[in-house]
Amino acid sequence: MKTVNFGIIGFGTVGSGVVKLFLDNKKEIEKRLNFKLNLKKIADKTKTSKEGVKVPKSMLTTDAYDIINDQEIDIVVELVGGTGIAKKFLLDAIANGKHVVTANKALLAEFGEEIFDACEKKQRMIGFEASVGGVIPIIRSIKENLAGDRIVSVFGIINGTCNYILTRMAEEGKEFDAVLKEAQQKGYAEANPSLDVDGIDAAHKLAILTSLSFGVKVNFDDIYKEGISKLTNTDIKFATDFGYSIKLLGIAKRVENDIEARVHSTLIPKSHPLANVRMENNAIFVKGYASGPILLYGKGAGMMPTASAVMGDIVDIARNIANNCNIPVPNRGFNNTSMKKIKIKDILDIENKFYIRMSVVDKPGVLAAISGILGKRKISIASVIQKGRDENGTGVPLVIVTHETKEKELLKALDEIKKLDFCLKEPLFIRIEDSI
Amino acid sequence: MKTVNFGIIGFGTVGSGVVKLFLDNKKEIEKRLNFKLNLKKIADKTKTSKEGVKVPKSMLTTDAYDIINDQEIDIVVELVGGTGIAKKFLLDAIANGKHVVTANKALLAEFGEEIFDACEKKQRMIGFEASVGGVIPIIRSIKENLAGDRIVSVFGIINGTCNYILTRMAEEGKEFDAVLKEAQQKGYAEANPSLDVDGIDAAHKLAILTSLSFGVKVNFDDIYKEGISKLTNTDIKFATDFGYSIKLLGIAKRVENDIEARVHSTLIPKSHPLANVRMENNAIFVKGYASGPILLYGKGAGMMPTASAVMGDIVDIARNIANNCNIPVPNRGFNNTSMKKIKIKDILDIENKFYIRMSVVDKPGVLAAISGILGKRKISIASVIQKGRDENGTGVPLVIVTHETKEKELLKALDEIKKLDFCLKEPLFIRIEDSI
Repeated sequence: MKTVNFGIIGFGTVGSGVVKLFLDNKKEIEKRLNFKLNLKKIADKTKTSKEGVKVPKSMLTTDAYDIINDQEIDIVVELVGGTGIAKKFLLDAIANGKHVVTANKALLAEFGEEIFDACEKKQRMIGFEASVGGVIPIIRSIKENLAGDRIVSVFGIINGTCNYILTRMAEEGKEFDAVLKEAQQKGYAEANPSLDVDGIDAAHKLAILTSLSFGVKVNFDDIYKEGISKLTNTDIKFATDFGYSIKLLGIAKRVENDIEARVHSTLIPKSHPLANVRMENNAIFVKGYASGPILLYGKGAGMMPTASAVMGDIVDIARNIANNCNIPVPNRGFNNTSMKKIKIKDILDIENKFYIRMSVVDKPGVLAAISGILGKRKISIASVIQKGRDENGTGVPLVIVTHETKEKELLKALDEIKKLDFCLKEPLFIRIEDSI
Repeated sequence: MKTVNFGIIGFGTVGSGVVKLFLDNKKEIEKRLNFKLNLKKIADKTKTSKEGVKVPKSMLTTDAYDIINDQEIDIVVELVGGTGIAKKFLLDAIANGKHVVTANKALLAEFGEEIFDACEKKQRMIGFEASVGGVIPIIRSIKENLAGDRIVSVFGIINGTCNYILTRMAEEGKEFDAVLKEAQQKGYAEANPSLDVDGIDAAHKLAILTSLSFGVKVNFDDIYKEGISKLTNTDIKFATDFGYSIKLLGIAKRVENDIEARVHSTLIPKSHPLANVRMENNAIFVKGYASGPILLYGKGAGMMPTASAVMGDIVDIARNIANNCNIPVPNRGFNNTSMKKIKIKDILDIENKFYIRMSVVDKPGVLAAISGILGKRKISIASVIQKGRDENGTGVPLVIVTHETKEKELLKALDEIKKLDFCLKEPLFIRIEDSI
């Protein structure tokens, strides 16, 4: 019987989860293999697991190159994270002829071309199911299940921290700062929350999904990113009045010959399945020309769910190695040569419906002036809510939901509106998606 | 460049969908392949597509053996359906060294061993993603994504016809017979609806899921099957009063050393994601030891969704053939030799909570007598509803929700209860699942 050896770089939360799962579940995994799968080495800065998972001392090293340079190791699992040393480890492992598995979305989104080109050059496999949506089987579904179809759109809730914060804001009526602070105390949000709350992490995942769904090379910086920190409970309540929930979505679509890819807070109808995804859960819709909508839902992060996805990739690649199959499925689902660099459509040219909240002086003629400015730009109004009386001169909220318009037209209109003397604050707008 | 040829037996709805998808989507599919994928022949009783899909006359034959015996054809796609001639076609194709793709759940559930053994003997691949849940990527998720995990349970809505009927009963207050008749007129239900409404089709799919999830051989007849034809609107309303929805579920679980596999109407909490799956949609939960719950949702049937799943399997197998990979993933996810025949746990020995509806004479002492009988069997009552007055002597409904008890204890109790002179009809019971 053949043996396939793997080594893990990074013995933190996810690394420990992978080791725990592999040890706890050895018997079950063996029944799925016609070869021996062996964990040979684990490297980390210190020789201890963060989660108290125990392995023989001889298996541990503080030098990642004990794994990368080990001639017997077939698969290197990179669980260091980030785009610094992790990149070097991954590229050196590939250069050494190793197949690799990673959960590192930042690395794949920002340096994907370099990494996939390196795999292509050395004809090596890379598994990255855990990089998007944790345990949600989205990568394999796109690369394999939908390989005969043509994907039209892929979108969803792909950042658990933001969804946790938005759920608690909506359900408890609390404001962003308060919920973020609690989330940080509970370990649901990082001390520096920017990667999550500014939409960067979601954009990393969306870059990967866009590339795989449409078979294109994506420049990460082209993806529009907007986080949730500006959202207030007032907006969540108004959205509810209009029949919407607010979620941070990653959205990628083919629209005629263009490709859209953007991350931002979005109003979606309360009846949409994504509106009911609560707390730190993730959910991704993918729509194919033939398949229609498919929804995949599960834990987007966490020690054991992520470990499950990583272990699935290790088994997948090991099965191929043991059966002399090299890259039966292209690493990104499309032939490298067919993947062209594309320009993501500018957010300013995208048509959307919009939610606009203004703070205005409560006097006659205000709505006429505002709707006049919108009308001039052919922006038609779907509905309006004005609530309360201006009791202390700070203005009353005036909320408008528009029909479809290009974002640049909306911005021009808002620029005029904010110059009106009865407009008291910078108007705020949120994009609406009610047909996805 | 290599060429992989496939042939299709069955040019009905699904067969036409596959051909349409392949022709419409050729350019996109080609970008995913490092070889040429070619549709060589289509066989059916008549040389015409049911759906008006046009192909060159030379591609059509009325003899399936023109495909099965064609030396150049690598993959035979069986879309005839049923367990008659389809079985012969599939086995003969495998015997001739063809890899096969099928959407035929009945065949795999009832004659799976014969078919998988034939594949094993000839070392051939079989794709059957479309056999369960249509376009839902459940088969590949279980065989590949969760290959490093240990599946604890798999359950869901896997018959679109029943879910369509139950949705309309619940939302419109109509009775089963009326909705079934309408569903038949609209083509959502067959003229002979038994396969669907008696739970047989769902049990076919559950047999496949059980085998793949737990790595066991399942005897189809061991799976408990109960349909939806006995359900009334009265039960749906009472279930709502208790906070439940009624769905036809396929449920397979590992409970200690036993395996449960059963299809029946089930009360699930209204807040459960499955309770919100409407109309003909399918949704499947799979829970792994590490992964936690994963929900997959999509169209369970239909020409193009099924075609998408079938085409995915064709591409998958073709990719393996073109890259000299034979069966990198075992056909059922587990090694054939590790798959043991198991006995499904008898439904009578399964513990559940139960909903019981009785029709009783409206007089003092009734509830005391009934709860006495239940108490004697250690069946404790969670809640009771008695509604209305007995105005015409036909009795009033008395509905009880129990705590967990073995089904055989419940049956013994109901047997005693129905002999009480104030019990007017055979008591009806429905199983409750509120922790899945």
